[in-house]
Amino acid sequence: MAKSKFEYVKSFELEDKCLPGCWIVVRIDGKSFHRFSDVHHFVKPNDERALGLMCRAAQTVLEDFKDIVLAYGQSDEFSFVFKKDTSVYNRRNSKIVSNVVSLFTSAFVMFWPRFFSTQDLQYPPSFDSRIVLYPNDQILRDYLSWRQADCHINNLYNTVFWKLVQGKGLTPAQAQQRLKGTLSSDKNEILFSEFDINYNNLSDLYRKGSVLIRNKVGLILTSSGNQTRSKSAFSNNHHLQSSRILTLHCDIIREEFWREHPEILNPKKSS
Amino acid sequence: MAKSKFEYVKSFELEDKCLPGCWIVVRIDGKSFHRFSDVHHFVKPNDERALGLMCRAAQTVLEDFKDIVLAYGQSDEFSFVFKKDTSVYNRRNSKIVSNVVSLFTSAFVMFWPRFFSTQDLQYPPSFDSRIVLYPNDQILRDYLSWRQADCHINNLYNTVFWKLVQGKGLTPAQAQQRLKGTLSSDKNEILFSEFDINYNNLSDLYRKGSVLIRNKVGLILTSSGNQTRSKSAFSNNHHLQSSRILTLHCDIIREEFWREHPEILNPKKSS
Amino acid sequence: MAKSKFEYVKSFELEDKCLPGCWIVVRIDGKSFHRFSDVHHFVKPNDERALGLMCRAAQTVLEDFKDIVLAYGQSDEFSFVFKKDTSVYNRRNSKIVSNVVSLFTSAFVMFWPRFFSTQDLQYPPSFDSRIVLYPNDQILRDYLSWRQADCHINNLYNTVFWKLVQGKGLTPAQAQQRLKGTLSSDKNEILFSEFDINYNNLSDLYRKGSVLIRNKVGLILTSSGNQTRSKSAFSNNHHLQSSRILTLHCDIIREEFWREHPEILNPKKSS
Amino acid sequence: MAKSKFEYVKSFELEDKCLPGCWIVVRIDGKSFHRFSDVHHFVKPNDERALGLMCRAAQTVLEDFKDIVLAYGQSDEFSFVFKKDTSVYNRRNSKIVSNVVSLFTSAFVMFWPRFFSTQDLQYPPSFDSRIVLYPNDQILRDYLSWRQADCHINNLYNTVFWKLVQGKGLTPAQAQQRLKGTLSSDKNEILFSEFDINYNNLSDLYRKGSVLIRNKVGLILTSSGNQTRSKSAFSNNHHLQSSRILTLHCDIIREEFWREHPEILNPKKSS
Repeated sequence: MAKSKFEYVKSFELEDKCLPGCWIVVRIDGKSFHRFSDVHHFVKPNDERALGLMCRAAQTVLEDFKDIVLAYGQSDEFSFVFKKDTSVYNRRNSKIVSNVVSLFTSAFVMFWPRFFSTQDLQYPPSFDSRIVLYPNDQILRDYLSWRQADCHINNLYNTVFWKLVQGKGLTPAQAQQRLKGTLSSDKNEILFSEFDINYNNLSDLYRKGSVLIRNKVGLILTSSGNQTRSKSAFSNNHHLQSSRILTLHCDIIREEFWREHPEILNPKKSS
Repeated sequence: MAKSKFEYVKSFELEDKCLPGCWIVVRIDGKSFHRFSDVHHFVKPNDERALGLMCRAAQTVLEDFKDIVLAYGQSDEFSFVFKKDTSVYNRRNSKIVSNVVSLFTSAFVMFWPRFFSTQDLQYPPSFDSRIVLYPNDQILRDYLSWRQADCHINNLYNTVFWKLVQGKGLTPAQAQQRLKGTLSSDKNEILFSEFDINYNNLSDLYRKGSVLIRNKVGLILTSSGNQTRSKSAFSNNHHLQSSRILTLHCDIIREEFWREHPEILNPKKSS
Repeated sequence: MAKSKFEYVKSFELEDKCLPGCWIVVRIDGKSFHRFSDVHHFVKPNDERALGLMCRAAQTVLEDFKDIVLAYGQSDEFSFVFKKDTSVYNRRNSKIVSNVVSLFTSAFVMFWPRFFSTQDLQYPPSFDSRIVLYPNDQILRDYLSWRQADCHINNLYNTVFWKLVQGKGLTPAQAQQRLKGTLSSDKNEILFSEFDINYNNLSDLYRKGSVLIRNKVGLILTSSGNQTRSKSAFSNNHHLQSSRILTLHCDIIREEFWREHPEILNPKKSS
Repeated sequence: MAKSKFEYVKSFELEDKCLPGCWIVVRIDGKSFHRFSDVHHFVKPNDERALGLMCRAAQTVLEDFKDIVLAYGQSDEFSFVFKKDTSVYNRRNSKIVSNVVSLFTSAFVMFWPRFFSTQDLQYPPSFDSRIVLYPNDQILRDYLSWRQADCHINNLYNTVFWKLVQGKGLTPAQAQQRLKGTLSSDKNEILFSEFDINYNNLSDLYRKGSVLIRNKVGLILTSSGNQTRSKSAFSNNHHLQSSRILTLHCDIIREEFWREHPEILNPKKSS
């Protein structure tokens, strides 16, 4: 029963450290969420409960991992950005990848009843997770832009698709055929002319996805979704622990967001 | 909003394929479970509810990943052994590591109320996960022996430790001091002479941990925990879906287990 | 000028250890040797000087790296097999890959004049190198069989091709066209009927490539190329340092070679 | 002899691509060059022939690999910097690491007689090689500063050490003892007061090492070692192929060098 004669097997555990000096992005994706959303009767094309639950789970991850500076989510995916010089778990890839996805999943299941009060979980949902390293700010921003552009493209498509199915009675196959080869402008036109919908008036939650960042002491959220410096420390007293994480639905492709939040890319510039 | 100009960022996702021809072991470990077990009032040294829940979560993983041939669990850890030639997720490390730990965590939280009917979850528990590759059967068996020897050593220690604390009123520090430098034989002796406990009579669940394997058609479980060939196919009709996974609490260090289950190491030898 | 403020850059050097318990194969390949062989007027299809030089360079590598149990070479490539449990350079991938290819190249250039007495080097030749890990003996043998089968296939093709060009005056394009789609049997037939050549009578050096193994004390080489146990220690006195490495041109695909040299796969069985 | 049944072994060759967007530095180091320099009677502390040969070998590497923007060498080591966005060998680690060290070694041996006309090679020298990735310009510069600071520190030490041995008749052990714990200023003082040597007047080749960069059309080397724009295209006609590589012995720690050569860090700024 001596443990020592077997301990040589530990030597098979190889180091998998992430290159220093790079942004560490952990992206999680729902596994077979097409089926999961059907079984659990998600509203199409966007289920506000599901999106809210995704954000709640992401918030849990940010509360636990202090070195995450931003998270971006849309549909059944979420990306978590660890600051460039983080030493979390000594930058070990598997440790980071697994802890983040495990905590996210755990929160997703635990908080499910808060968001789906009338719909029980039929089976345990799961997510995969990967790490991608980005060596500089521009490439990191391009990564986030890629995900937000993806959100836009999918949401526009899904919005028209489900309108055709739910509003016009087309079968999914017919709707798909109708949209084949159409440009964004064509889809906007269909929405406007056939359904009297101005796509740009739809909820930012759907069109932009969700951006979670840390609220800084002395900052409050203005009605425009942007932050301004608070004159009074008082307002912050109303913030609970969890409210230290801000959930925005804003454009992160354009320069503006990054100018307003210089502390994200450069924590030392933080006010 | 064109997605394409950002898509170059995908080139930063590097391949992380596991070497072919090796056993893939995924080991998950509870994160800060010392604290978690305190907050949720786990019975010490072994909480049957927690161990049952761990096994239930592991069972979910085996039901989903058909290429897992064996899982071994003890305390807050579980090891999943994928067959040598598995092509699950094209053997991508992150995919496997993340999907397994996510599903395990999901099941752990979802099934929590079944095992802890009077104790709500206070916060979302999480697990880390890593892959270790073992190039041949002997080293794989040594790995499993290492974990089971670890189970034995820890359980013997914890059993005496908590007896001293709960039965004799020692403080944790005093109990620790008392056990410092003692051999296994010393601990057995303390249990026997001071608490009238024969360690070998304690539950196999505690002393051996849990071994999950697949039940083969035509096999039934004998009272000794070993399998014998069933003469009748009838008995299998009683097995439900979930009962296709057997949970044993037997010795996997000795030759005997492997002689009885040749199909684990060599699926082609399976009856 | 303080070195210490810059030393953090060392943290960017990541570990690249080879998985323990696996055969480490280092394969080197000539870079642009088609051009190199033209510029240096290699005899086609096989230049005995070049093949001899390759073997001499490989011998230098075996003399330096005691954990190499076998090397196999053909054309402008050589594979070096390190024993499964080698701890050379602590199994660091880059260290092994670079040292082997550097020493091979160094010997290739240094010994060039011995093999090409009338032909100066026109420019420095180079080789690339990679490590492949093979987790068990069978797969290692399949790897070596793959390289030897490759030797056979290429050599048969090249032998006929150059006969057509040199003996029949076909242009390379015509020879290529003539051989398109032919089977091995077709090529053998062309050699026999048109050039009166029995392929099997050609030199083993060309057809089988070169196998370098270590000569064991107390073993001598018989005329058949196989080893038998020497009755007398005397014969070994004739062996110089370098003759401790045997260069064979034998079949390593069939069982026979491995039965005669059990010490290659299992050093402990060595006599 | 069918090759195909063995070809599955190729699946064991795993991808080892370098992260995009990072500087790729290949550093080669002489293997056991302490012994090599003794056997080949190198002049101590600096052998001009050996340093010249190192630079000649490095020049060959730069001529072959067009994506190397700078090389820095000192003692028996050389670092080659590939531009951030190089796609050489599709950024495969082993390919790059092995080809560079092989070509360097090849040139080192081939050009040996040009530099050591009266000293034959006694055995084939070799080098190891590794890749380190640096995600941004500052860290790359810090890496190069680290190597040049190392050059300075070692050269100062070696200069005093060998003066004590060669000029004062101390044994190596005595010289080592004498220098134990001394600061740079102490060593400078010993040189000045005991040997009448002003360290700063020693050759830049020894004190700064060697910097190889590409000569741009329209640039000529001034006497100060800096480049100025040439008024006349004529002067360039005198440059042979190999003279397109400049070998400098200048400070690369300070800002000046990088201001004069902006094209190194940003090829698009190249004139």
